[in-house]
Amino acid sequence: MGKRLIVQKYGGSSVANVERIQNVAKRVVGYKKKGNDLVVVVSALGDTTDELIELASQINSEPSEREMDMLLSTGEQISVALLAMAIHKLGFEAISFTGAQVGIITDTTHTRARVIKINTQKIRKELAKGKIVIVAGFQGVALNHDITTLGRGGSDLTAVALAKELKADLCEIYTDVPGIYTADPRIEPKAKKIDIITYDEMLIMASLGAQVMQARSIEVAKKFNVLIHVRSSFSDKPGTMITKEGKKMEGVLVRGVTLNKSEVKIAIYAVPDRPGIAATIFNQLAKMGVSVDMIVQNVSHFRQTDISFTVNKADAPKALRLTRKVASEIKAGEVVEDQDIARISIVGVGMKSHPGVAAAMFESLARNKINIEMISTSDISISCIIKKKFAEAAVKALHEKFGLAK
Amino acid sequence: MGKRLIVQKYGGSSVANVERIQNVAKRVVGYKKKGNDLVVVVSALGDTTDELIELASQINSEPSEREMDMLLSTGEQISVALLAMAIHKLGFEAISFTGAQVGIITDTTHTRARVIKINTQKIRKELAKGKIVIVAGFQGVALNHDITTLGRGGSDLTAVALAKELKADLCEIYTDVPGIYTADPRIEPKAKKIDIITYDEMLIMASLGAQVMQARSIEVAKKFNVLIHVRSSFSDKPGTMITKEGKKMEGVLVRGVTLNKSEVKIAIYAVPDRPGIAATIFNQLAKMGVSVDMIVQNVSHFRQTDISFTVNKADAPKALRLTRKVASEIKAGEVVEDQDIARISIVGVGMKSHPGVAAAMFESLARNKINIEMISTSDISISCIIKKKFAEAAVKALHEKFGLAK
Repeated sequence: MGKRLIVQKYGGSSVANVERIQNVAKRVVGYKKKGNDLVVVVSALGDTTDELIELASQINSEPSEREMDMLLSTGEQISVALLAMAIHKLGFEAISFTGAQVGIITDTTHTRARVIKINTQKIRKELAKGKIVIVAGFQGVALNHDITTLGRGGSDLTAVALAKELKADLCEIYTDVPGIYTADPRIEPKAKKIDIITYDEMLIMASLGAQVMQARSIEVAKKFNVLIHVRSSFSDKPGTMITKEGKKMEGVLVRGVTLNKSEVKIAIYAVPDRPGIAATIFNQLAKMGVSVDMIVQNVSHFRQTDISFTVNKADAPKALRLTRKVASEIKAGEVVEDQDIARISIVGVGMKSHPGVAAAMFESLARNKINIEMISTSDISISCIIKKKFAEAAVKALHEKFGLAK
Repeated sequence: MGKRLIVQKYGGSSVANVERIQNVAKRVVGYKKKGNDLVVVVSALGDTTDELIELASQINSEPSEREMDMLLSTGEQISVALLAMAIHKLGFEAISFTGAQVGIITDTTHTRARVIKINTQKIRKELAKGKIVIVAGFQGVALNHDITTLGRGGSDLTAVALAKELKADLCEIYTDVPGIYTADPRIEPKAKKIDIITYDEMLIMASLGAQVMQARSIEVAKKFNVLIHVRSSFSDKPGTMITKEGKKMEGVLVRGVTLNKSEVKIAIYAVPDRPGIAATIFNQLAKMGVSVDMIVQNVSHFRQTDISFTVNKADAPKALRLTRKVASEIKAGEVVEDQDIARISIVGVGMKSHPGVAAAMFESLARNKINIEMISTSDISISCIIKKKFAEAAVKALHEKFGLAK
């Protein structure tokens, strides 16, 4: 194999302490020794980000988002400096950069900024000198020089976006699990590691609860066809390749089962059934930045209907407050929150051409006496809202039903 | 009093925890309420810098200075973000900047960079909007965008340099002691706070061991006539004003007594007494970046002499190694290190015109049976090297002798 440019990203658990940083340094140097060019993206050490958030909350319960970015971006800056020192110790040349120094230019939407442009000149210059380039993940800089961050999991985005801009041969995402699984192995011990998965499947799995990789970064990878390898920093075994649909993948009906317990259901009863009522409600929520997930509107009785929807737990208080306000304005009835729900989903590109998959899923849940409260479907996924207590049983039932343990 | 521009600097102990950060915010807001414009320079929280140095040393005992600056500058970045949040909480507008964002341009001498230029445009713009501007101390940025730091105590320099560039009315240095004392109050309980001191006296006191303010920052203050007020962040009482020589100060012979226990004496015996020999030794030390303090060369006997000098403890191993090498080259005798020394000094502009001061100092030490090993004098200071065990007794004797307790 000739000289390749590889972008590697190491998550917080991979650099949680001195020993792990040294291990990452050894791994990076191992790749360098084989003649590769390396750009390494690093997250903050272990729980640093959460600790800084906690510190901020003690000072101001509603901290300025600009100042939060100023604060949180220090986490990755510490990591890159320490990793550079660890690589130097092994006798190799390395240089670290913050997002601002590289020129990862974003908009000014603090705490969840979008990348506008990445300058690669600085990185290319150092690579040409034979150096290993280390870049702080999760962060960028706005045109006014304010420091920005890219939202939770933003280091994945840094890595994928750099891989795209640098036209890297491969983007490796190192984490604390061996790859993507057919289900959460902590729930279903029979879960199998997936060797290869499509961007679309991975995107749906990430948005439906698989927490291994940030959904936005997979969108970018898909758009620019960046080859991704998700794998463990504690092992040399191959993980999961994320790629375009390939021949190898045909015939696989369902790729995996995902579970998301961090949603809350909000129901509005006795909504006057006039055209535009649903739009009124969801427009208001969208304006306040609340992202609604599943929506179910019941069949109308006596010109009244019930509308239910799910939102992320973090958005629930805001969504509830807003929905109660709107409900009173449109003269609807009671607004009720239900935290006792879980979302169980099956994902697979093979579903597209197999209409019987949904039926098989519902039947399997019914046979296990698991009641379905809401259903949502897409081309390559089907999700059901069920009671939280059935969540683990549902994962096992569906994993079995679709033969995911092989 | 009309609207004033005040630069305030808060040291690490003043922002060591959430409660202290909140106290600093209250103090800052108090000044703002009186109609002042405020630029606030902050050091890293408590022992953050030492903790980061320790972390780095676990990874690499000789870390790259560029990466050390990358690492250490995060400490102040955390402080400024948290202080901004604390000020917001009190309902006032504030904005934080890193050294790089402000445009504190330095050379590339990492870990002890020199300030070349400070851009004040960004600060002035935010002040004009009525905001309190918070600037990370201790750090700057080189023209190649590398982050630099200004050396120990560098936040003092940030504050003084900003005060100069902004033409501030006053530069307040907040610390954990009430001001500058006639001697260290932990050694001499009768020590008095000095109300007013000249730049020259303060400079000498700082370089002779008084650790309240960084020596380089006092040089800058003197050069540009920046009025400084050193005071406690835990009290509202006035501290010590540092200023040009004033009428009030005439007649004061000795301003204070300082003690420095962090020097080591190195003696070279049987040095061939040829012209240029001393130059050979000290040129070599200077080339290796070892800064020599006091030098004593004995009267020659039989064409041989002994040369003794003192260096800072941190430089001692390097200095010793180098001196042994040179001694062997010039065919001198043994090289001996003595860590058991202390430097005791008296400082005061009044000394210039009073030739009897040195004699009074030596007599006082002699009367207390304290042997003097080396002597060094300047216009406004006299230092003696004595045995470490006599250090505290010497401070008390001289404090008494020159009537510093009034």
